[in-house]
Order: sequence, then C-alpha cells, then structure tokens
Amino acid sequence: MKSLSAEILCVGYELLSGAVVNTNAHWLSQKIFELGGFVKRITVIGDDVNEIDRGVREAITRRPNWLILSGGLGPTYDDKTLEGVALGLELELAVNEYAVSMLKRNYALQSKNYELDEIRLKMARIPFGSKPLQNPIGSAPGVLIENDGTRIVCLPGVPQEMKAIFMESIIPSMKKEVGDFYIVESNYDVEGVSEAMLAAKIFEMMQSSSRGSLYLKTHPLGHTTDDNKKQPRLLIQMITKGENESEAQRIADTVSGIMATEISLLKGTITGTLEKKFHN
Amino acid sequence: MKSLSAEILCVGYELLSGAVVNTNAHWLSQKIFELGGFVKRITVIGDDVNEIDRGVREAITRRPNWLILSGGLGPTYDDKTLEGVALGLELELAVNEYAVSMLKRNYALQSKNYELDEIRLKMARIPFGSKPLQNPIGSAPGVLIENDGTRIVCLPGVPQEMKAIFMESIIPSMKKEVGDFYIVESNYDVEGVSEAMLAAKIFEMMQSSSRGSLYLKTHPLGHTTDDNKKQPRLLIQMITKGENESEAQRIADTVSGIMATEISLLKGTITGTLEKKFHN
Repeated sequence: MKSLSAEILCVGYELLSGAVVNTNAHWLSQKIFELGGFVKRITVIGDDVNEIDRGVREAITRRPNWLILSGGLGPTYDDKTLEGVALGLELELAVNEYAVSMLKRNYALQSKNYELDEIRLKMARIPFGSKPLQNPIGSAPGVLIENDGTRIVCLPGVPQEMKAIFMESIIPSMKKEVGDFYIVESNYDVEGVSEAMLAAKIFEMMQSSSRGSLYLKTHPLGHTTDDNKKQPRLLIQMITKGENESEAQRIADTVSGIMATEISLLKGTITGTLEKKFHN
Repeated sequence: MKSLSAEILCVGYELLSGAVVNTNAHWLSQKIFELGGFVKRITVIGDDVNEIDRGVREAITRRPNWLILSGGLGPTYDDKTLEGVALGLELELAVNEYAVSMLKRNYALQSKNYELDEIRLKMARIPFGSKPLQNPIGSAPGVLIENDGTRIVCLPGVPQEMKAIFMESIIPSMKKEVGDFYIVESNYDVEGVSEAMLAAKIFEMMQSSSRGSLYLKTHPLGHTTDDNKKQPRLLIQMITKGENESEAQRIADTVSGIMATEISLLKGTITGTLEKKFHN
C-alpha cells in the first residue's frame, strides 16, 4: 500500500458563475479517496488560457502524483484547456494521429454525415509527446502527459464523458500504484453531544494514532426539534485503513469502542450507525 | 455600475475526500454573480494551517476585491482557518470582546446551562484588528478583515450559518460597491445543432460585443433518443448586462435574434426558451 496524492483543476466559467454545481470535482475526489489516494487541492478557474497556464504551473510545483484537469476540451472558441496546459508545460500543440483516428471513429458512431473540419480537428491538436485517451461515449479524447513525476490528465467537462475516460484509462493505473489496502468507515448519528464537547477527545485520538491509519471527524447536524429540550445532533465519521481486512477492522473496533464510551459519559445517545467497507 | 472581483477559499478535508459536495462555493458564486460581481477562482484545501496560510497569501497576491473563506471556524481541533488566516496576513490572534459577547448570546439562546470554556472561547480568538460578524443561527461568529484593498471574510462551513452571515453582513456592502445594473438571461433549448456548428458564430459575437455586456455559452445536453435519427441537444445561455433595463433588454433582443436566425440556417429547432431578469 503506497500513498497517492492528486490535485484537481476544473476549468469553466459556468463553475465560477454558479450556473453549474461542481459535481466533477466531487466525483473525482470520491473515486480517488476510495482508491486509497488523497486529493490535496481542488482549484476552479475560468476558460482563460493564462489562468490555465498559471494553474498548471502552480500545481506541478507542489508535485502531486496526479493532476486531473476537467473541462475545456471541446471544439468551441472557449475550450482552451489544451492550449493552456501546453503553455504551462512549455510544450507545442500538434495534431496527433491517434487522436484523429479516435475523433473519426467517434463522429462515425454519432452520424454518417460527419465532416472532420478545422473546428473539430482542434480536439486532436494535443501537447506534443502526450497520449490521447479514448472517449468511449463522446467526441473529445482525453489527454495524458507525463511531466517529471506528475501525471497530468485532461478530461472533458461533460460528467458522463469525464467519468467514462477516468474509469477506463486512469483507475487501473492508480490501483496498481496504490496496491492492496482495506478501509472501514463507521458513521455514528448522535444526539445530546456537541462538536465542542468531543473536540479534546478527538484531538487526543488523532494524535495517538499512526499517520494515515485513522481519520476522525464530527459534522454538526443542527438540533433536535421534537421536544422543548433542544439537543444538538452530530454525525461522527471514523475512517480506518489497514493493509489487510483484520487490521482495518481491529482499529475500527477500538476507535468505535472509545467513542461509544465517551458519548455515553457525556450522556449522549447513538441514534444510528452505518458501516461501509472498501477494498482496493 | 462597478466591477467586483472575488475569490473563494473553502477549507475542509471533507470536501477533498468526496464526503461532501461543495454547495457552499456554488451558492456563493451564484450570489456574487447575481450581484454583478465575478468569482475569478475557487480553491479547496484541507484543514491544515500551512495550507490555509499559503492559500491566503496566494489569493491576496492576485488582489481580488473580496476573498471569501468558508469552513474551519468551529471549536474543534481541526478548525484552523483563523490560525491560518492570521499567519497568511501576519497578524496575531487575540480574544475579541465583541466576539465573546456574540458567543455568550448565541450559547444562551441555545441552552441555559452553557459554559464558555477554553474550547468554545477559541471561536472568539480572531486576527487582531478584524471585525466579528454576528452569526444569527449558530455559534461561531464570522470575521471580516481589511487588507490592502482586499476584504477578507471568514464564514462557517455549515451552509445555513454561512448563508445567514453572508446575507446579513456581506451582501449590503457588495451591493453598494457594485451600484445599479440590470441583467437579462435568455436560455434556448435546441435540437439538431451541435457545439461545433455554433462555435465560430459565438466567437464572432463575443469578439464584437463590448466587454462585460455579453456572456454567451453553449452546454451540450447529449442527444435525442426518441427516433432512429439521433440529433444533438444543446443549451444556449445568453446573459446581457446593462446600466438600465432597456439597455440590457435591447442587447438581449439583438443577440437572441442573431442566434435564432443562425439556428434556423443550421436547420436546428428551438424546443424551449427561458428568460430570467435580475436587478441590483
């Protein structure tokens, strides 16, 4: 089991104007987290070539294992991601013949009367030396670029296409990189205990656990409304990780035991429990 | 009508692990856009004091009019936003008496048996020289800091509390700053026309409009499925802005006319129209 760090860079004015919720960043971080990796930063910028250039330069300076871009790969005038990435990595854009074949195949699937004009061919002009990634359900291919320890992936902004390319071309490499591990996630729904009451205990437990094996977090859920004695409600999320199932489960059981005792000492009630398990 | 630029900096590991969708960034960008401002960048980082420090320093270098932070104001060990902001702005944290009064008031509203212990008092330790903002529905006050042309606002991560403080304490100042303006947003739902087919026309229209008065964007919606002749579906979003209603409407009518003609020339069909108006 190895660590894997990633950054996400989303490109699109529609994400900055509030027209669209950034579900792409959410989906990508969830997938990377489930694979055992961790997203260290998400950045959203507009369809501006200088902003993309700058965003890429800043991200590679922080040296994540992966930098995932999403958005701006289409044929329209404001799809500037590949131009910005090429600038940021100081590469030239060049027509890639594999990408041209992919485009031809994808347009042929969509309609018999397609024409690969200049505007559509733009999607096959990718940074020199990079690898186009098959788009199984849309037109624009994804792009993979190796840069000094960081793998840079450009994906379309259309969620279905972004997901399809990521599942097919990226997840297998990430899985191989991370290796085997097991995760147990336990969630407690609690009444009568506030964040402040648990803060010291959680701090102590996080401090005493070995790095990366435990993640403990409280999320306030407001207050109960059913009687005149208002009680705080809290979600406690406990995530433990191990090289094998019994190790992850052993840590999870210990942590759950300590938390249940603490909640009971504070006169709180656990009203619900949800356990999830992942295996890479 | 003046321009207003903003950046959003969201703090919280739960946003990086995919546990929570970043609805705060979406809501804030939508509100700022409706007010006539524009978010230039959204950044999401973890609850790490050095990351927050760095995020704040980077953002103020880009000199937005406003920098809005959300998350990490609570009493728990991993609420580190104010510590990170203080580092980034090279200020000391100090107990603020107005913030203490706010906390006392808020806890008194929640329960008669509260105790303002060290852990809770943490929420009143704010960067020296900053102004606490009343939290009308929760505990942690917001914080406003003036820094060399950028107003920095720290808001809680709990969406209801973030929204309440923003509405009460920030929107009035932003409105005053921007001044009067009118927006007309027209949306076309179109069949039989793809992004690529409209790309050149949209580029031309954007180039010929005066800066800031027109925003034109196509969003692909997949394909029609109802017959054997698959047609592309597209959402065309046209936003026009003017100092008064008739100016905004006049630009909107011109743009809509040109687009309708173009769609008809391309043998596409407008299957739906939605018009919205905003006034600051």
